[in-house]
Amino acid sequence: MVPDPVLRAAAVVDLLALLAYGELQAFDQMAADARLAPDLHRRAVLSAMAAAEIVNYRRLADRLAALGADAEATMRPYVAPLERYHDQTAPKDWLEALTKAYVGDGMADDFYHEVAVRLDSPDRELVLDVLHDSTYADFAAAEIRNAIDADPKVANRLSMWARRLVGEGLSQAQRVAVERPSLALLLGDDLDAVSGLFKRLTSAHTARMTAVGLNN
Amino acid sequence: MVPDPVLRAAAVVDLLALLAYGELQAFDQMAADARLAPDLHRRAVLSAMAAAEIVNYRRLADRLAALGADAEATMRPYVAPLERYHDQTAPKDWLEALTKAYVGDGMADDFYHEVAVRLDSPDRELVLDVLHDSTYADFAAAEIRNAIDADPKVANRLSMWARRLVGEGLSQAQRVAVERPSLALLLGDDLDAVSGLFKRLTSAHTARMTAVGLNN
Repeated sequence: MVPDPVLRAAAVVDLLALLAYGELQAFDQMAADARLAPDLHRRAVLSAMAAAEIVNYRRLADRLAALGADAEATMRPYVAPLERYHDQTAPKDWLEALTKAYVGDGMADDFYHEVAVRLDSPDRELVLDVLHDSTYADFAAAEIRNAIDADPKVANRLSMWARRLVGEGLSQAQRVAVERPSLALLLGDDLDAVSGLFKRLTSAHTARMTAVGLNN
Repeated sequence: MVPDPVLRAAAVVDLLALLAYGELQAFDQMAADARLAPDLHRRAVLSAMAAAEIVNYRRLADRLAALGADAEATMRPYVAPLERYHDQTAPKDWLEALTKAYVGDGMADDFYHEVAVRLDSPDRELVLDVLHDSTYADFAAAEIRNAIDADPKVANRLSMWARRLVGEGLSQAQRVAVERPSLALLLGDDLDAVSGLFKRLTSAHTARMTAVGLNN
């Protein structure tokens, strides 16, 4: 818990803004990924999932406004790190796109979930609510599994890709943490808490990889 | 009116599929255009408008399924002409993107409106309902007008761009009409009706151009 209420309120705004910009970016990325779909049905499924991000964006932006924050100004610090992450990890094909969503959004959602449970209402409920429901992860997981069943060599290529995603993601997360130390405050009050958090994120990630036939 | 009920039912499926694919394409295009937005607020506005297209897509795809049609198969004939239109008219900047939406979607909506009023319920209501509401056109018109106010030279460049859009749009519409003659059947039973339609589309287009300071 962040003891100082002013600091804490600022940290919550920082978090909501990060999530809001993340939704805008995810919309953009998924809309672009939809172009890589092998058929119109899959393209429509992914487009619909992208559209759902915008509904979440709206809810977060409305909450920022209710807190007296300017959504645009509060999102701005996250533009560079998130764009860099996405530029560095532009998927070359449909499976890379789905793996990115499955692995990257999976880890990000786990992280936000950890933070959310430490928030007060109504932000706690709002953040838990805007995390991806499992529809997208289930869809992506099924596509990845099927591709590996059809051609086991795919597993190696996608495993390497997933490692690159995690590496790039952590390096941009670090930039965000340096830029907005308030966010780190939300994570817990001591080093033990933070290292426990990383342990949980890592084992959830490993389980996710294994579940679709990828290796760390 | 198309007298033969079997032909007419096929024509309605063709029309709904064209609209459905148009929504998928519009989503894709507007999501890409959002990247050209000069700030995060405008980017969010355009992203939200793109997301609305997907809701419309879902409604059209559901109706196609209810009519026993395979959405994917029925949309396929329109993929090439619509992709070609969008490839040939990829906007270079924010104002070109808005002008494309304002001029191109405006004309397309007028056309669909003309067809819709000749349909029976519930397709008539469905098509009228999925046509763009005026929010987007109003937003685009305001942006174009402001840009011309700030720099009158912009009017010439955007007027030329609009003429290119209309030319490319008509040429792809012709391809669609050749490919799906059923759609032409929905338009009316004689040449007079068709030429009246074109007259109305043209004068609505001219009015739209004048309203924002563009010339034909």
